[in-house]
Amino acid sequence: MKNTDGKNILDYETVALDDENNAIIIIDQTKLPGETKLISLKTGEEIWEAIYLLKVRGAPAIGVTAAFGIYLLAKQILTEDYEAFYQEFRKQKEYLDSVRPTAVNLSWALNRMEEVCIKNREMAVADLKELLRKEAVSIKEEDIRVCKAIGEYGLSLVKPGDGILTHCNAGKLAACKYGTATAPIYLGEERGYHFRVFADETRPLLQGARLTAYELFSSGVDVTLICDNMSATVMKNGWVNAVFVGCDRVAANGDTANKIGTSVVAAVAKRYHVPFYVCAPTATIDRNTPTGADITIEQRPDHEVTEMWYQERMAPEGIKVFNPAFDVTDHDLISGIVTEYGIARAPYTESLQEIFRKKEEGMI
Amino acid sequence: MKNTDGKNILDYETVALDDENNAIIIIDQTKLPGETKLISLKTGEEIWEAIYLLKVRGAPAIGVTAAFGIYLLAKQILTEDYEAFYQEFRKQKEYLDSVRPTAVNLSWALNRMEEVCIKNREMAVADLKELLRKEAVSIKEEDIRVCKAIGEYGLSLVKPGDGILTHCNAGKLAACKYGTATAPIYLGEERGYHFRVFADETRPLLQGARLTAYELFSSGVDVTLICDNMSATVMKNGWVNAVFVGCDRVAANGDTANKIGTSVVAAVAKRYHVPFYVCAPTATIDRNTPTGADITIEQRPDHEVTEMWYQERMAPEGIKVFNPAFDVTDHDLISGIVTEYGIARAPYTESLQEIFRKKEEGMI
Repeated sequence: MKNTDGKNILDYETVALDDENNAIIIIDQTKLPGETKLISLKTGEEIWEAIYLLKVRGAPAIGVTAAFGIYLLAKQILTEDYEAFYQEFRKQKEYLDSVRPTAVNLSWALNRMEEVCIKNREMAVADLKELLRKEAVSIKEEDIRVCKAIGEYGLSLVKPGDGILTHCNAGKLAACKYGTATAPIYLGEERGYHFRVFADETRPLLQGARLTAYELFSSGVDVTLICDNMSATVMKNGWVNAVFVGCDRVAANGDTANKIGTSVVAAVAKRYHVPFYVCAPTATIDRNTPTGADITIEQRPDHEVTEMWYQERMAPEGIKVFNPAFDVTDHDLISGIVTEYGIARAPYTESLQEIFRKKEEGMI
Repeated sequence: MKNTDGKNILDYETVALDDENNAIIIIDQTKLPGETKLISLKTGEEIWEAIYLLKVRGAPAIGVTAAFGIYLLAKQILTEDYEAFYQEFRKQKEYLDSVRPTAVNLSWALNRMEEVCIKNREMAVADLKELLRKEAVSIKEEDIRVCKAIGEYGLSLVKPGDGILTHCNAGKLAACKYGTATAPIYLGEERGYHFRVFADETRPLLQGARLTAYELFSSGVDVTLICDNMSATVMKNGWVNAVFVGCDRVAANGDTANKIGTSVVAAVAKRYHVPFYVCAPTATIDRNTPTGADITIEQRPDHEVTEMWYQERMAPEGIKVFNPAFDVTDHDLISGIVTEYGIARAPYTESLQEIFRKKEEGMI
């Protein structure tokens, strides 16, 4: 599937650093699949708005965007005094950190960048800026390695020809390559597994229809688009052997915040004895959040539900709307949490600690 | 909430017979909530198309439309010979019966009309036509009484201030007054129960957003619109005390076909211990269908999912789509089937027979 410029969607980078022009280049995902438009983000406000309006979205991609963003903003702080530099850095960091509350990767990436400042406070500001650049680039490069590792572990859970259901977009467009939930699918496709994938369209903003169906279809994967409320039918028909979803924040006990509707899929999967797997880079696992009840769920504007992507209004004027962007899937509905260090199984409080022990032992 | 002509949506009849002009007058429900447009159906093709395109929809309303339709078509058969009349009647009946396969009310109403022909074959054709008119009018009048009775029984299952979730539209717009799933809500509202209702928007055609939210909001009911994938969140939050849904066909064992997504709501309700009730006029209970597996599920065109109501395309060109219009909720997920003769509980094979015994004892 080629775009008007002859390129495949997979030829573009989801998030790229244009250091020379002090810019982040992203695909404006709100225009997909109709138009592939690259946009350049330069100011803090542009970065904040691009994340808020979901021009760039997905927990890993938000993390990378935030890292590139804080680097570019830091680079342009005009002082050689560390304290003045750090005060301004903190201000910019807090601003970027305020844009979306649920995905932990945003603050995780910003905290990693701040750590670089704190650890290197004795260094000349110019050199510190170079370290920040390296850290941001590392965050992106790690994302690619992490997703690939998740893909390998995920692939061990399925067999050739299996049916896989996914919700929202935890694909290449949500990360830097492979995606998280799609990593086993892409790796399997490379190895001739020929999965049959079902993509939930994912209301209200249709990331499944617009992004997941698009990127998988563009990659030649056998994908069928369904409405969110059809998951029970495809599972009851025996067409689904596993569910893979991404996540925005995993609590210490395994409760998982992800795109609204994920917990519906999990309850339905339980009913039809389909294993339900969360693909979670360790960056998304927040040991400081004890349970799902401690995760802030972002509420989004009514018009996302009532106006169908700014087109004709599909609900009566004045109607009350409830529009949470995420929900929490209770850990007892989760068959496994697939990380870059292996697959955690219940009880998660222990198995996730074991994952972090492996992480502390060394990089993948 | 008034329309441009100053009328409330509830001032219109969902389906009306205009005998003088040989027409059925319906609200074109595909235009709601933006425009309240009454349309007149005269030919068999117009009636067929209006049902197929969901200009009139909902199992009870389809039954009434079919009854009015076959009466009007029969009335215009130009013969006084019974056999010739009956042959033509059969042809028209089969044509109307072919339009949608899942809701049993369509064939139920047409069979009732045919019974009138068969039982009165000795009668002059002109007199037979008058009997057909009376039968069609009875079907509509019964629908109103039946819905009210369902409302009374349904109301016994909830208490003032309760939260009620409903899926799709089994409201006034799906029947002739009260609706089925909404009957307890409307009766409760009249009696000061002040329910808090959650209306699933119901993809792909948004009958919940466009019709249920609209008619309840117009009636002053406290209603909140949600996407289908938010049901788990509202239930987990403790906001829902009961689910009421309509149905298109109930099998002898209690398995229930209803709008796609109903079985998802049922699985989620089970998970969160929320009772799940099906509101079913006995006309919708098909004792000739042993189980849900024997119900034909209508498949609808891809564009309903990909094009968002004929507006901008929201999925890649060429993508495969699965678009079943209905699903089957297994009887073990159903807490009760609310009929005009009382509430059937598991085991349904026996309790539904008991409902029909009560029906045979006398009209309500």
